[in-house]
Amino acid sequence: MSEAGKTAFRIEKDALGEMEIPAESYYGIHTRRAMLNFPLSDSRIHDRFIRSFGQVKEACAAVNMKLGFLDDRIGRAVITACRDVSSGKLNSSIVVDPYQGGAGTSTNMNFNEVIANRAAEILGGELGDYGLVHPVDHVNMHQSTNDVYPTALKVAVLALLVDLEKEVSKLQGTLQHKEAEFSQVVKVGRTQLMDAVPMTLGMTFGVFADAVARDRWRIFKCRERIKKVNLGGTAIGTGLGAPRDYILQVAGELKNICGLPVSRSENLIDTTQNCDSFVEVSGMLKSYATNLMKIANDLRLLSSGPSTGLGEIKLPARQCGSSIMAGKVNPVIPESVAQVALQVMGNDQTITLAASMAQLELNQFMPLLAHNILNSLSLLQNVTVSFTRNCVHGITADTDRCREHMESSYALATVLVPVLGYSSVEKLIDSCRESGRSLRDEIVFQGLAGADEVDELLSPQRLCKQGFTSDEVKWGKKK
Amino acid sequence: MSEAGKTAFRIEKDALGEMEIPAESYYGIHTRRAMLNFPLSDSRIHDRFIRSFGQVKEACAAVNMKLGFLDDRIGRAVITACRDVSSGKLNSSIVVDPYQGGAGTSTNMNFNEVIANRAAEILGGELGDYGLVHPVDHVNMHQSTNDVYPTALKVAVLALLVDLEKEVSKLQGTLQHKEAEFSQVVKVGRTQLMDAVPMTLGMTFGVFADAVARDRWRIFKCRERIKKVNLGGTAIGTGLGAPRDYILQVAGELKNICGLPVSRSENLIDTTQNCDSFVEVSGMLKSYATNLMKIANDLRLLSSGPSTGLGEIKLPARQCGSSIMAGKVNPVIPESVAQVALQVMGNDQTITLAASMAQLELNQFMPLLAHNILNSLSLLQNVTVSFTRNCVHGITADTDRCREHMESSYALATVLVPVLGYSSVEKLIDSCRESGRSLRDEIVFQGLAGADEVDELLSPQRLCKQGFTSDEVKWGKKK
Amino acid sequence: MSEAGKTAFRIEKDALGEMEIPAESYYGIHTRRAMLNFPLSDSRIHDRFIRSFGQVKEACAAVNMKLGFLDDRIGRAVITACRDVSSGKLNSSIVVDPYQGGAGTSTNMNFNEVIANRAAEILGGELGDYGLVHPVDHVNMHQSTNDVYPTALKVAVLALLVDLEKEVSKLQGTLQHKEAEFSQVVKVGRTQLMDAVPMTLGMTFGVFADAVARDRWRIFKCRERIKKVNLGGTAIGTGLGAPRDYILQVAGELKNICGLPVSRSENLIDTTQNCDSFVEVSGMLKSYATNLMKIANDLRLLSSGPSTGLGEIKLPARQCGSSIMAGKVNPVIPESVAQVALQVMGNDQTITLAASMAQLELNQFMPLLAHNILNSLSLLQNVTVSFTRNCVHGITADTDRCREHMESSYALATVLVPVLGYSSVEKLIDSCRESGRSLRDEIVFQGLAGADEVDELLSPQRLCKQGFTSDEVKWGKKK
Amino acid sequence: MSEAGKTAFRIEKDALGEMEIPAESYYGIHTRRAMLNFPLSDSRIHDRFIRSFGQVKEACAAVNMKLGFLDDRIGRAVITACRDVSSGKLNSSIVVDPYQGGAGTSTNMNFNEVIANRAAEILGGELGDYGLVHPVDHVNMHQSTNDVYPTALKVAVLALLVDLEKEVSKLQGTLQHKEAEFSQVVKVGRTQLMDAVPMTLGMTFGVFADAVARDRWRIFKCRERIKKVNLGGTAIGTGLGAPRDYILQVAGELKNICGLPVSRSENLIDTTQNCDSFVEVSGMLKSYATNLMKIANDLRLLSSGPSTGLGEIKLPARQCGSSIMAGKVNPVIPESVAQVALQVMGNDQTITLAASMAQLELNQFMPLLAHNILNSLSLLQNVTVSFTRNCVHGITADTDRCREHMESSYALATVLVPVLGYSSVEKLIDSCRESGRSLRDEIVFQGLAGADEVDELLSPQRLCKQGFTSDEVKWGKKK
Repeated sequence: MSEAGKTAFRIEKDALGEMEIPAESYYGIHTRRAMLNFPLSDSRIHDRFIRSFGQVKEACAAVNMKLGFLDDRIGRAVITACRDVSSGKLNSSIVVDPYQGGAGTSTNMNFNEVIANRAAEILGGELGDYGLVHPVDHVNMHQSTNDVYPTALKVAVLALLVDLEKEVSKLQGTLQHKEAEFSQVVKVGRTQLMDAVPMTLGMTFGVFADAVARDRWRIFKCRERIKKVNLGGTAIGTGLGAPRDYILQVAGELKNICGLPVSRSENLIDTTQNCDSFVEVSGMLKSYATNLMKIANDLRLLSSGPSTGLGEIKLPARQCGSSIMAGKVNPVIPESVAQVALQVMGNDQTITLAASMAQLELNQFMPLLAHNILNSLSLLQNVTVSFTRNCVHGITADTDRCREHMESSYALATVLVPVLGYSSVEKLIDSCRESGRSLRDEIVFQGLAGADEVDELLSPQRLCKQGFTSDEVKWGKKK
Repeated sequence: MSEAGKTAFRIEKDALGEMEIPAESYYGIHTRRAMLNFPLSDSRIHDRFIRSFGQVKEACAAVNMKLGFLDDRIGRAVITACRDVSSGKLNSSIVVDPYQGGAGTSTNMNFNEVIANRAAEILGGELGDYGLVHPVDHVNMHQSTNDVYPTALKVAVLALLVDLEKEVSKLQGTLQHKEAEFSQVVKVGRTQLMDAVPMTLGMTFGVFADAVARDRWRIFKCRERIKKVNLGGTAIGTGLGAPRDYILQVAGELKNICGLPVSRSENLIDTTQNCDSFVEVSGMLKSYATNLMKIANDLRLLSSGPSTGLGEIKLPARQCGSSIMAGKVNPVIPESVAQVALQVMGNDQTITLAASMAQLELNQFMPLLAHNILNSLSLLQNVTVSFTRNCVHGITADTDRCREHMESSYALATVLVPVLGYSSVEKLIDSCRESGRSLRDEIVFQGLAGADEVDELLSPQRLCKQGFTSDEVKWGKKK
Repeated sequence: MSEAGKTAFRIEKDALGEMEIPAESYYGIHTRRAMLNFPLSDSRIHDRFIRSFGQVKEACAAVNMKLGFLDDRIGRAVITACRDVSSGKLNSSIVVDPYQGGAGTSTNMNFNEVIANRAAEILGGELGDYGLVHPVDHVNMHQSTNDVYPTALKVAVLALLVDLEKEVSKLQGTLQHKEAEFSQVVKVGRTQLMDAVPMTLGMTFGVFADAVARDRWRIFKCRERIKKVNLGGTAIGTGLGAPRDYILQVAGELKNICGLPVSRSENLIDTTQNCDSFVEVSGMLKSYATNLMKIANDLRLLSSGPSTGLGEIKLPARQCGSSIMAGKVNPVIPESVAQVALQVMGNDQTITLAASMAQLELNQFMPLLAHNILNSLSLLQNVTVSFTRNCVHGITADTDRCREHMESSYALATVLVPVLGYSSVEKLIDSCRESGRSLRDEIVFQGLAGADEVDELLSPQRLCKQGFTSDEVKWGKKK
Repeated sequence: MSEAGKTAFRIEKDALGEMEIPAESYYGIHTRRAMLNFPLSDSRIHDRFIRSFGQVKEACAAVNMKLGFLDDRIGRAVITACRDVSSGKLNSSIVVDPYQGGAGTSTNMNFNEVIANRAAEILGGELGDYGLVHPVDHVNMHQSTNDVYPTALKVAVLALLVDLEKEVSKLQGTLQHKEAEFSQVVKVGRTQLMDAVPMTLGMTFGVFADAVARDRWRIFKCRERIKKVNLGGTAIGTGLGAPRDYILQVAGELKNICGLPVSRSENLIDTTQNCDSFVEVSGMLKSYATNLMKIANDLRLLSSGPSTGLGEIKLPARQCGSSIMAGKVNPVIPESVAQVALQVMGNDQTITLAASMAQLELNQFMPLLAHNILNSLSLLQNVTVSFTRNCVHGITADTDRCREHMESSYALATVLVPVLGYSSVEKLIDSCRESGRSLRDEIVFQGLAGADEVDELLSPQRLCKQGFTSDEVKWGKKK
């Protein structure tokens, strides 16, 4: 047991003193201090952020090696260790809470220590012996948390934007497929939840598709500013302590490694302290959330019932809805979509506040911003996949109910107004109330038009045509 | 007095019954009902919205007249009345509360009634006699609140975006002027409010300018989607009740009248119910608010004191600050800027929620969205003017204090690290503590470098150059 | 004309120089400077805030006079002027924008100058001649913006809370009246918008009433902390420059004047800088907004249709809904309620941020906080009045449709589950599908129960009774 | 391998078909479907929520057993399984994403299946064989997600509120300790970041303590409404399907089990659909966040420097701050506090929206609300512990700098105004500018007062006394 006691911990030391570190852990004393300072949540740093952090560290090491600042043997070990980080092998060693003071210093040191120890291990050294590979001198060479952390975050955001765009594109495609599928389903359109005028169910889904198409475009366009990184700027963006050649080359190296269109910002000081490009991205995500919310709520309304709601569409059953209510199937996927949308809206506020409160040469609330924007991106991507596959794809129309609703409501009357005039239609409605006939029957009964003419008036072809032509007006005028 | 009683009111009638209307008022019974239904705030519809509403009504009347749907004599009177609205002459008649149910119906009817009565007046008729010019049949011909209201709102938003961009551009210019003015003022850079590394005050303002330049670009680019209008779509965007030629021409007519790049949306149904383009615009305004907040707070910090704060810059005195504290001048302009920024962030939330809660074929919360986005645009424009003129333009530097701060802090030490190495600098700092000498003096005293060399190291020229070259490293290495 | 020119303006002077002031205006140079510094919105200070500001100024003058610091003749004139402010006579002279830098200094000086000039006028002096009554020395005696402004704001908030509580109480009463009125209307209850289990329409309104009752209680309780004022604390709450007797008496004097339960805070420094009690009040207003939103949305859903929505209740028609759609009546009052609720939620964010960003001994963003909380209070009060009178009071039930919905849906089946068991009910539903009979008929047809027994099972009496007793279970068991 | 293949999965079946379930897992097919439907985040249900869910299930089983609805043997096994859940032993089996559609159905079914399988195991049965103990018939007996989920959430919230209050109380105590410790440290008070009037550092911490004391009180008081649970209400609160005796007893049983003051709501229908009491709690948490933000920001300002900031206090060093800047120690703990505060504000928005969007008889967004409020409670508790221990406790004052700041600023002058009069002080300040003497020296030099008198004027005793008495005024008057 005394033997076991000996090996269970190693001792590390920093300017504040000594600490025990679990003997087998890749992280070191700075990480350990951060764990004790920030035991705030159960969350971990996002996987994609870990990956991009590894890529950034690799880019720095590669350029430092190329320029002769970093010894080749050490450099190669560091690069291998960085790739172990990027590939996710060391995820369990990235342990600092995403909520943390210090603009990301603790997370950066967590990476520095893990990479140094892993590199030392590769070179045959012992964990915790920084004589071989030093977390600061080697791994963090020519870097500062203040340029590394935001750069890695931007790489992660860019990567997630690319992924999100793909999923939004699939959702758009699926909605467009439904637009075509339902193009002949005539239904009532509603304004302020009240029966209004006729339309087709295809139009409903066409509108969803067009909204999502704008989001896709926005998600594509908002990369323009987020792709500018401050890597090389060190502490405040002046590049203090870093060699000019390194500054000029490191962003390009990163671009090659991560395969994303990052480039060096023209004003590294600006990019170090200002986070408006994150606010911009989050604003675009929020626009998408707004559209998702609208679509999800419309699907919930249109599928409500089955008996006493609108019931014009059916969502695919994904799970049993209730233990008390036999056969109840709930719109669980749209509900989850709406909830994610609300979360993204809430996150946007947090992101905005974190960005707006930067002071002087640094944004000290960067970790909060990072946690929330990665959360928004991830949630949106995941929910878009689920929405497309588990819901939109399997939606069916209740064509009979759609038509029945349209014909039993005043929506029909509104089609007649431009043809017969407002007051004639008002009288017609009064006649219906007396006779108990449907509007369609009353029109035919009064000889205002033949059944065929009414059907033509309500045909999807006609409803999809914008406005009437002079020919069509004549039909009404002749009466 | 009985005579006066007779003339003080006129009686108007609608489907719900009769009401007394002030005899001299241009508005009618629908407006009056709305006033009683929505006595919610002291606010009025934004002037720019009134103007664009007049322009939209004019465009509709012009096309209806051209196509022969609207009698020329009536049409000309309506157009004149619309211009009276646009020019602001009838502002006092637009009385419905901006907060209102009905997706803007009450505001639209307010305009319809005012224009009808004004047109009747022009034609020699009496107020309240709609036999001559009818609010619905003539003024609202081929229109619905649901296409007119969002279109007018977009015109107003576009116009205000154009105005805002101009002011943001002036702010950017003024900041750049300061960047040049302060390019030789060396100061300490701070991260997390702690002394960090040297920089110039010019850099500080250059960063502000670059942030604002991005905002300018965003404010320019976000017009792309907001300029697509649904005019002609009537109730839900299908154009029901409107002639095709009218639909095809009316947006173009509006473009000519308002002189802004509006165009007909490709999917009028989509544009009727979806408000994501407003959320996008508000998101961009929020990004600008984020930057304004950052700049305003930095100015407040940098000018804090005068004795016991940072005191590195002086804001122009704009008003006396205190009755108790003699000579106290407060940073009132940046404070007002920050408050507007916070208001814009709060408005953004309201706008997002209003947009996300559209249901089916209409957004029933459009008036709330309108009120908040116009408020944001207006506040930002006004505060940008004031910020540029009343504050940024007159900022001066306390050059001595800037240099003194830089030399008395460890910022100087950080410059030496890449030259002398981390541990040598640590020892140097310890020597300072013992000797009581300043770091600069200690370096010279120890013969590590001449006074000239230190000065060169801290020269603005050198600080503004990103990174060191191999030559510069040698200076340190030779010691 | 040169004569007119002479009298149109008077010249006033302060530490920053001279300015022209409109000759007839009660306000002076400090106000004028503020108008030029903050031309930000079209808004004015809330009437209730003007009133409470007058009351605070009166309380200070009264105590100063009583203690001999303020000459009796001047004091009496000042008090009369204060009352002119409180009574609203001088509202048009309170011209500084609610959005302003300086923690309210400009608004305070606006009041000081208006009261001084009005008092001078009373004493026979000229406007702008401060030799008689001085804005700072007399009107602002022993005061600072920093104690006067928050105190006046708290008085206004308290007064508006009292008013709001009354209106919430009326809304609660009206909802309870509806609860009784609809106690016998059986309807389907819905979860996740899907048909679920039976209930009565009375229950629906009873729930609304209970929610609102909680709000009433909260609005009552949240006065506890907001009523503590820092009047007497002067600049930072230490009371510097004010006599002890004045500090001890002035809050009591204010209580008598305004008739509201204000009292002196135990820690004036705390109350000067901390605004959490405003955040607390706004949080309670937001809870009420949450309930209003829920109720308004439910009313919109339940009244949707008239043909193809839920249509279980009818809202009173308040205005014509559409020019295209004959006879369409929209739920405009609930829509306005929901919009106000969203605005209050947005305002809450702004209030929270403004409060959270206080720095050291003062909250420099107080004017923003003031503007938003008064806006929330006012909007909520006004919309509650309108909601009660224009909507809730006139709601009617469509009893037939309610019952029909209940009997045509599986809600009926859920009542049978505890009686017949889950699997029997499932079989019964299958039988219905085959036979085309309604569930009620199928039960009777299969002899599972008599028509009377089913009716009893669905009687309002039974539905309103929580849970079943052992007797009731037997009915099911005997089958 | 074929053997392994056989045992790796078991087959379960529900109304939608069959699925493979990992053979060893306690969860079943409903859980599995939910995992596939909601693969949205990496988060898990909060531990405290798992615990309270186990307690709720236990209470239901206990009452069902007592009343004879649940067989004793099964009942005892279920209760043991519930306790295994409550004790945290089965945490790894609660796998459904906190983000989920369905108002919590999937989480409830996750618990039902885990408890059923664990109970079966206890009774010697096999996992997945629900003949012995059935997830719905036995574990969920007389329950619905709609009463169980909100009840368990309220128990968790109550428990976390109790824990939070304890930590807030400790923070308050530590702040009060600092108030006493710094009671003799005279410093400058600042308004709008500008030098204003003197105070003591003790006052600063006393203000913090008083703010936190209000929070403690609010956190205590806001339990009043959240403690009312709807357990027994089943689907919509009418108690349909549950026996009356069960409804009457189950909340009491839960109270005994969890040891928290829960009680049965008077209107179970209301409590099922309305979430305003959660909004109320979140509003109180937000008030606390507001105060934490203010305190954290003040500490960051006061400790800024060390050379060129305010530097009036020193925060304990918790970790090394920078790899570039030797000896830099950053205010990481206050930074983490501020970030948590911002997160809580953002969460509050999400909670409010989720609550406000309930529809009819249920809040379909409850899981979102749950996730955010538990996150806020947990973050606040954890950060309060860290703030107290890692920061506040170790704060020290730089007494010399505090006094130096006070004497070198016009704060001193403000003390003299009530004694010497405004204009004399203004002249004095002018003299200082000419002579270069400090204000204190100038006063003594001019013979206005002796050094002793000035010191007395600035003594902590005097500064802590509110206002001046008539005696003190005479001192000034005699000059």
